Amino acid sequence: MSQPLFEYLCRMGDNALVLGHRVSEWCGVAPVLEEDIALANVALDLIGQTQLWLGLAAEVEGKGRDADNLAFHRDVWDFRNLLLVEQPNGDFGRTMMRQFLFDGWHLAQLQALMDSSNDQIAAIAEKSAKEVTYHLERSSDTVIGLGDGTEESHRRMQSAVDRLWPYVGEMFLSDDVDQEMMAHGIAPDPASLRAGYDTLVADVLAAATLKRPEDDFAHKGGKTGVRHTEHLGHMLTQMQWLQRSYPDATW
Amino acid sequence: MSQPLFEYLCRMGDNALVLGHRVSEWCGVAPVLEEDIALANVALDLIGQTQLWLGLAAEVEGKGRDADNLAFHRDVWDFRNLLLVEQPNGDFGRTMMRQFLFDGWHLAQLQALMDSSNDQIAAIAEKSAKEVTYHLERSSDTVIGLGDGTEESHRRMQSAVDRLWPYVGEMFLSDDVDQEMMAHGIAPDPASLRAGYDTLVADVLAAATLKRPEDDFAHKGGKTGVRHTEHLGHMLTQMQWLQRSYPDATW
Repeated sequence: MSQPLFEYLCRMGDNALVLGHRVSEWCGVAPVLEEDIALANVALDLIGQTQLWLGLAAEVEGKGRDADNLAFHRDVWDFRNLLLVEQPNGDFGRTMMRQFLFDGWHLAQLQALMDSSNDQIAAIAEKSAKEVTYHLERSSDTVIGLGDGTEESHRRMQSAVDRLWPYVGEMFLSDDVDQEMMAHGIAPDPASLRAGYDTLVADVLAAATLKRPEDDFAHKGGKTGVRHTEHLGHMLTQMQWLQRSYPDATW
Repeated sequence: MSQPLFEYLCRMGDNALVLGHRVSEWCGVAPVLEEDIALANVALDLIGQTQLWLGLAAEVEGKGRDADNLAFHRDVWDFRNLLLVEQPNGDFGRTMMRQFLFDGWHLAQLQALMDSSNDQIAAIAEKSAKEVTYHLERSSDTVIGLGDGTEESHRRMQSAVDRLWPYVGEMFLSDDVDQEMMAHGIAPDPASLRAGYDTLVADVLAAATLKRPEDDFAHKGGKTGVRHTEHLGHMLTQMQWLQRSYPDATW
């Protein structure tokens, strides 16, 4: 039981870590100051959640590692995040579309985890859900504002959703780890979150005057670690540089 | 004397290493197959030259390091390449303009080094000059072909030279290390290469129907290691990833 639980916690932690790092790449270069600060805050929330999830993962594993070890000393094949969150930022619109597509799933997932049979998971989920409620509100508003904005912003947002849609399906797939979590009342069936997600996406895209892509083909392999996209490895070289180059550095 | 000579050899080696790595980033993604192979060959030539220059640098230093150590275990502040060669690839046109602006200097520099009082340097220069003669021929032809090409390719090449020109001046600056090399007949006065370079650039840009930027402002700090552009550190995280993450790896 401890191995599937460790895997599951790494999935939650790695989603937050990888997306948090991606969003932090905007720090200092966002289009307007308010968005720059908002993006930095979202990144900080996600890195904070990472510490909780990976901290618990390390505790469950019981091999003396901690959240920092897991974040900075695992290599790409050990990461368990969804492929969606490792996709490059692209322009501001694509970053916000990625955020919206993730937030919609993330909030539903955290709300379900608040009923987890594992008290520590329920507590992390409750704390995180408060932050993610705000993330979703902001990303929905931005998707609507830019989709139903100028001709240029509309075009970019449609292009963003077309590009990112093939990474949505992976969030609702399940495997042995999920089965084990469901059997112990720890986590929900991923597929059970799909209907609510589809309704949310339909509502927001309609308000944004954007078309939901018709093709439901889905890339997979991120959360199982079978195959990440080429982008994650390159991101890790930068994210892990300090701890890789100076393994025993302290300050 | 061994410290300035070590510095000087690092400058030659780091130019070849950094540009070689940059050019290798095109491998598999160049616009047409022939250019892909040509770029890969140029990259290989430069990495081969790197082994000779940094190998000699390590020997002169006499601290038990080798070319691999110098390439993969120094950090950004120890690199001594020109700022020009660390600039990102941009599009194919900008890559070729960077190559031309470097090749023109590189060949003149190597031809002067063939007369070096240091036999090992003269030998490396002679071997390298054969390869770089071809590099310059190819990059000149491409700059002319694209500059005097379509409206779009002309626009891009003018934009490339405008962007890269502020990195040209550094090649002709000298400091204490250069003075020491000149005093011992090891290397030429950098400034002595400028007139020939200016003639070459004028000829090629004229044939390419491109305008030489008027402003002669020059960024500096790369070859002295005082200040690199932000791009080098990011490049090194990827170039050095394997040896940083797995320091004692063998196969």
